Amino acid sequence: MAEERLPSRADNFSEWYNQLVLRAELADYAPVRGCMVVRPYGWALWENIQAALDRRFKATGHVNAAFPLLVPKSFLEREKEHIEGFSPELAVVTIGGGEVLEEPLVIRPTSETIVGHMYAKWIKSYRDLPVLINQWNSVVRWELRTKLFLRTAEFYWQEGHTAHANAEEAEAETRQMLDIYADFAENEAAVPVVRGRKSQSEKFAGALRSYSIEAMMGDTRALQAGTSHNLGENFARAFEIRYLDPNNTLQYCWTTSWGLSTRFIGAIIMVHGDDRGLIMPPRLAPYQIVMVPIYKNDAERSAVLETVARLQRQLTDYRVFVDRRDGLTPGFKFHDWELRGVPVRLEIGPKDVAQGVVTAARRDRPGKEGKQILPEAGLADALRSLLEEIHHSLLTRARAFQQEHTHEPKDYASFQETLQDGWARVWWCGETACEKAIQEDTHATTRNIPLDQPGGESKCIRCGQPAREMTIFARAY
Amino acid sequence: MAEERLPSRADNFSEWYNQLVLRAELADYAPVRGCMVVRPYGWALWENIQAALDRRFKATGHVNAAFPLLVPKSFLEREKEHIEGFSPELAVVTIGGGEVLEEPLVIRPTSETIVGHMYAKWIKSYRDLPVLINQWNSVVRWELRTKLFLRTAEFYWQEGHTAHANAEEAEAETRQMLDIYADFAENEAAVPVVRGRKSQSEKFAGALRSYSIEAMMGDTRALQAGTSHNLGENFARAFEIRYLDPNNTLQYCWTTSWGLSTRFIGAIIMVHGDDRGLIMPPRLAPYQIVMVPIYKNDAERSAVLETVARLQRQLTDYRVFVDRRDGLTPGFKFHDWELRGVPVRLEIGPKDVAQGVVTAARRDRPGKEGKQILPEAGLADALRSLLEEIHHSLLTRARAFQQEHTHEPKDYASFQETLQDGWARVWWCGETACEKAIQEDTHATTRNIPLDQPGGESKCIRCGQPAREMTIFARAY
Repeated sequence: MAEERLPSRADNFSEWYNQLVLRAELADYAPVRGCMVVRPYGWALWENIQAALDRRFKATGHVNAAFPLLVPKSFLEREKEHIEGFSPELAVVTIGGGEVLEEPLVIRPTSETIVGHMYAKWIKSYRDLPVLINQWNSVVRWELRTKLFLRTAEFYWQEGHTAHANAEEAEAETRQMLDIYADFAENEAAVPVVRGRKSQSEKFAGALRSYSIEAMMGDTRALQAGTSHNLGENFARAFEIRYLDPNNTLQYCWTTSWGLSTRFIGAIIMVHGDDRGLIMPPRLAPYQIVMVPIYKNDAERSAVLETVARLQRQLTDYRVFVDRRDGLTPGFKFHDWELRGVPVRLEIGPKDVAQGVVTAARRDRPGKEGKQILPEAGLADALRSLLEEIHHSLLTRARAFQQEHTHEPKDYASFQETLQDGWARVWWCGETACEKAIQEDTHATTRNIPLDQPGGESKCIRCGQPAREMTIFARAY
Repeated sequence: MAEERLPSRADNFSEWYNQLVLRAELADYAPVRGCMVVRPYGWALWENIQAALDRRFKATGHVNAAFPLLVPKSFLEREKEHIEGFSPELAVVTIGGGEVLEEPLVIRPTSETIVGHMYAKWIKSYRDLPVLINQWNSVVRWELRTKLFLRTAEFYWQEGHTAHANAEEAEAETRQMLDIYADFAENEAAVPVVRGRKSQSEKFAGALRSYSIEAMMGDTRALQAGTSHNLGENFARAFEIRYLDPNNTLQYCWTTSWGLSTRFIGAIIMVHGDDRGLIMPPRLAPYQIVMVPIYKNDAERSAVLETVARLQRQLTDYRVFVDRRDGLTPGFKFHDWELRGVPVRLEIGPKDVAQGVVTAARRDRPGKEGKQILPEAGLADALRSLLEEIHHSLLTRARAFQQEHTHEPKDYASFQETLQDGWARVWWCGETACEKAIQEDTHATTRNIPLDQPGGESKCIRCGQPAREMTIFARAY
């Protein structure tokens, strides 16, 4: 219900976000510190995200499975960097069935270790490879500073875990999944992303090499929207995941993991939303079209509702909601559905019925500019084009915003200035010490080292040492 | 891989089951006591079960959401019967982020309490009702005696939670969901079930009234395959779920909950399977059709594989697997897919190719009897009919088996005898003391009091007191 105005994005982006998530009924705070409830409207968006990703996973030969929630604590300790990274964030079960457990169990913060244990059991020969498994689940990482969708103690995601015969195949898989995430982000969510490699200090705890897609939010901060890790032989050695090669020699597998979470819902909100509320990308929107019947008396009502019912039967290819709520004005309903970001609103009043038309209003262009009259004949096709146009318009707008706020400063002073309100794409030496110094000066971190590189060599923006790659620095969620 | 024969069902039903689950790669034991890994073939079956149920839930106005995994222990204590029922089975988190928690958290054994807490926050007025939410998740109940799918510490399920204005609507919802489970069981899984009410001692901890669907396994034991609970005002009073009615008076809601779990996979295995392995019901089978190419040399190979590829393009409406594995004989593949229960096997050899036909073998009728030659022209339609016929044949066979092993003994001696190898449908007084005495004598429990009753009144099979309903007693999983 949109009784009050949202805070404006310019005045207070953070409060705009917090209130919008609650008012649009995407999620709510749970009674357990740091946890969230994903409400039906938010979950419907997640289900569409799941379907769009799952289709891509299955088309590339992956299958789903389910590994347990509980992991022996000792499993995490087998990979040194892994336990160092996750140890501070663990939720630990010490009592089961009324008795103190001999070995404490942790709720998975991620599943590399238990998957590794099972793969060691299942994989015997090169004939068993590759193993390409994904799972949809939730994980728990104890967080003190939480924000709905962006950082919560429990969050929902998919985690893919694959095992391969050699380095080349593992790297190819890691990169393939990164590309799938980028394709999903741009072609389903209309969220432009930069694909790149994470720095040593930002990589996954236990990985050989991590990649990410990074998106620019409406306040120019970066959000890591999906990651793909080449784990090398690290977990294979920790869990003895080995296979007999065609020469009957035991070899370690190479493994990968990759994940995209409900954080992505935060990205959709912060990339597309405006001061009126959400703008749902049409291909993922829980409702693509909302119909608002408009009438003043019973005679108008029955004529309008009859037309609405007929139109609804024409539009079964779309996700449509008909707002038949009594006792609410059309104006109230318009605001409400703007808040919830439905891409197209159809207004159907007695005049429209008489003329055999509907009034279509685009959510991405509020006001008169975004309104058009569509004839009832051929409505389904017209709406298909309109939804496609909205998708491309959102993507183009977000891409322009990202480009406008990405700079290539040439000296450290302008670099620091850039980071106040945008991303800096600069030559960097790759040294962790230098990265830390920059973070202390600017609160910005390396987001990733884009795959798309100019080549050549230059000098590090901060220390002046040789630099072979350009890197994106930004303040991040 | 089907290297060795399975134990026969007649010799050792329990071992037949355990080995089949492992060998068909449906599930495996996890390293944490009592937990399982659901492997891709098992999860694909579960995904089909999910889709079939989710469709039915959404068609009846339900939406999905996600409530947190962790619940404050004090929440469970607010409903007296609820905490008594679940207390012995809880997994308790006492440490989070390296610190001992002030209040211990339990991993949800079921979500009535946390859902109740949120509903109290969301529901204000009669206009907000009914609330019809479902969630797909996993829950943890500490179990000492475990069996894959049937009884594991963590299991997967859906749990529906609804809130209503009054008793009538809550009861109607409870019964509607029971009917949906029965419809799903029979029309998707080909598993015949008996719908009925649970006895007082067998009802859900905290419910006013529980209903179940009960199925007969291949060893004549019963399995509770889905439950639907009318929770009355119990949880509404414990969590203050109230609404203002049209007269502006505060009223308690009536709530319901209903669930169906991965146990159902156990039912599918034990209802349909035979000594060769699984028999997947066609509407839920991960693969409905497997194609096995047969050839002796390269020339045959290329002709056969070309035909297989052409057929595959004709059969895109089905879930098809083409077994192109090298180095394995057709006979080995036949056994392997029989073990995994694929409903229809298509054998395609050089002679078939020459004649423009394929040999189709039905999994539910192994051997020559179940083989037929199908012309390539019109194959998709012929397979549609064949898969439908297999579904009905499985359902008819299972129903006949259930009827054959359900008796109505007239005295206590024959009642006890019946329970050695079947179900007894008898008049029972409804007293818990009598129920317990029967359990001590026979190891059988009340399964449910069928909705379908003869009416009238008779005497209790054990105590001779007046009895107004017939009840099913059976040994159960």
